[in-house]
Amino acid sequence: MKEFELIKHFFTEQAVKRKDVLLGIGDDCAVVSSTENQNIVVTTDTLVAGVHFPLGTSAKAIGHKAVAVNLSDIAAMGAKPSWISLAITLPEVDDDWLAEFCSGAFELCEFYNVQLIGGDTTQGPLSITITAQGLTPEGKYLSRSGAKSGDWLYVTGEIGDAALALLHIKEPMLTENDVIEQVQKKLDYPKPRVLMGQTLREYASAAIDISDGLLADLGHICQASNVGANVVLDAIPLSDAMKRSQPFDDSVQLALNGGDDYELLFTVSEDNKVGMETALTHAGAVITCIGQMNASQTISTTLNNKPVPIISTGFQHFSSNKKHVKIT
Amino acid sequence: MKEFELIKHFFTEQAVKRKDVLLGIGDDCAVVSSTENQNIVVTTDTLVAGVHFPLGTSAKAIGHKAVAVNLSDIAAMGAKPSWISLAITLPEVDDDWLAEFCSGAFELCEFYNVQLIGGDTTQGPLSITITAQGLTPEGKYLSRSGAKSGDWLYVTGEIGDAALALLHIKEPMLTENDVIEQVQKKLDYPKPRVLMGQTLREYASAAIDISDGLLADLGHICQASNVGANVVLDAIPLSDAMKRSQPFDDSVQLALNGGDDYELLFTVSEDNKVGMETALTHAGAVITCIGQMNASQTISTTLNNKPVPIISTGFQHFSSNKKHVKIT
Repeated sequence: MKEFELIKHFFTEQAVKRKDVLLGIGDDCAVVSSTENQNIVVTTDTLVAGVHFPLGTSAKAIGHKAVAVNLSDIAAMGAKPSWISLAITLPEVDDDWLAEFCSGAFELCEFYNVQLIGGDTTQGPLSITITAQGLTPEGKYLSRSGAKSGDWLYVTGEIGDAALALLHIKEPMLTENDVIEQVQKKLDYPKPRVLMGQTLREYASAAIDISDGLLADLGHICQASNVGANVVLDAIPLSDAMKRSQPFDDSVQLALNGGDDYELLFTVSEDNKVGMETALTHAGAVITCIGQMNASQTISTTLNNKPVPIISTGFQHFSSNKKHVKIT
Repeated sequence: MKEFELIKHFFTEQAVKRKDVLLGIGDDCAVVSSTENQNIVVTTDTLVAGVHFPLGTSAKAIGHKAVAVNLSDIAAMGAKPSWISLAITLPEVDDDWLAEFCSGAFELCEFYNVQLIGGDTTQGPLSITITAQGLTPEGKYLSRSGAKSGDWLYVTGEIGDAALALLHIKEPMLTENDVIEQVQKKLDYPKPRVLMGQTLREYASAAIDISDGLLADLGHICQASNVGANVVLDAIPLSDAMKRSQPFDDSVQLALNGGDDYELLFTVSEDNKVGMETALTHAGAVITCIGQMNASQTISTTLNNKPVPIISTGFQHFSSNKKHVKIT
């Protein structure tokens, strides 16, 4: 196991040095300080090779994604990410692989000033568990449970491309190279909506990040908030790559049930709608209103202003695409 | 994956409800509050089946041990454990196994008022990663780097039994049932020295928990503190089970190089020696002085007041028994 000892230097080369990290890598624990009037948000996500990313995924993409999916959870709370702990299990020590993995992980950490404060390296089948933490003003955080009947339903970015990329990896059917590149990039390098989440903290009534699929994650908001929702299928934001390569029906299916988008799905009251739109679009964010919450406790879908039955399933059906189950 | 959805209820049945947990299991992140004048310590440890515990280990022992090894790191900092996040990867959902795992994990959590605030459940080869956090008064924590030449070296409890149990599992040679039971219990149910750690915060100059082996972990203190040490082999505390079943030389080898003890190894100045001994022994703790730090930057060993050369290796040799490498 001596070679595993050598791994450490890969993780100590990060550039981020936060003032609130009193003791970083190199002891039994890291020590961090938090100021008064702040809450700390904590999330943990595991990525298993062949389950959460295809076996051929590049080390850089795995590094990026492992950090991104955790920062996406922090973003959904409206918090500012601060520290991560990394537990990585590797079948063998491969310096090139590790260098690439770190470059993918640290690029994102540096962008958001997130410091790696510790972790553990073990030998075994490839899997990565990251615990990410973030800070938010006391009592100011988004959750899944604040949506009210009448609130508007929004989504950031475009939905479904990652699912299309996964489909293409399983059963190749895309022909245009730029389409393949575009959707592959969405699958491999999801962008956690960290800044949007922090802006939304002032406006949104509920938020979640889309990991299991738009419908499944909307189901989580509905369940936690004790409301229902109608989704306007014509309004779902689809990428050019999706529109060029897929018929509308397939696009909508991928968008509704695909998952791996790591966009934010959030609700906002009528009163906060204009303020939210102004604040987010001023910052250059792409957001789309895709429906409205109601008191039905079910999810319905409409197309061309008419109800369509295909998607109106109960909450219990929403978990079909789940690859893991958050205990949080 | 629907059955994985059902796992969640196992983890939501914990009894601990801390006031500083504003949002527990059930959202994108947990939310905790910390008061001013406190630091937060953070550690992450992974246990992989067949690497960190034998494949036949009971689910209850695995649950206990996964929590214990993390609380042991918190103890080594002198902090009070507060919250844990659990990432568990399971080959299949087995209700009996999960119930036993949780009973082992939660028993320890309840004893120390530690709340499970979230995590992730995935399908794959059995492995458990826990991130544990703890609280300590601002700036008051133990580290590996405070030992000074002249400080006394102490260890809690008795050393080597877990290594003896592992040896017996690999090559059965123990014959007495009560010996087997006793050392097996030490391997399966290590006791994190949480209360001792908190008391030591006021007295010790450096501390570490013994996971890699007494010599290896002493090496970490020496390296971080830029000092050396002499270990008095006759003073090493051995259990009755060890003394009854093993010749002295083998006992000492197991104690020095075995690991998995999760006892605290710490240093204390001459000035603090009596105060520390009084405080700890008043609380019923078993501690033993096993040597003294010096300026040599190497580790030496003595027996019957005479130097013995066998163990005086350099720091680079200390990692031979490592099963994982803490990035922290």
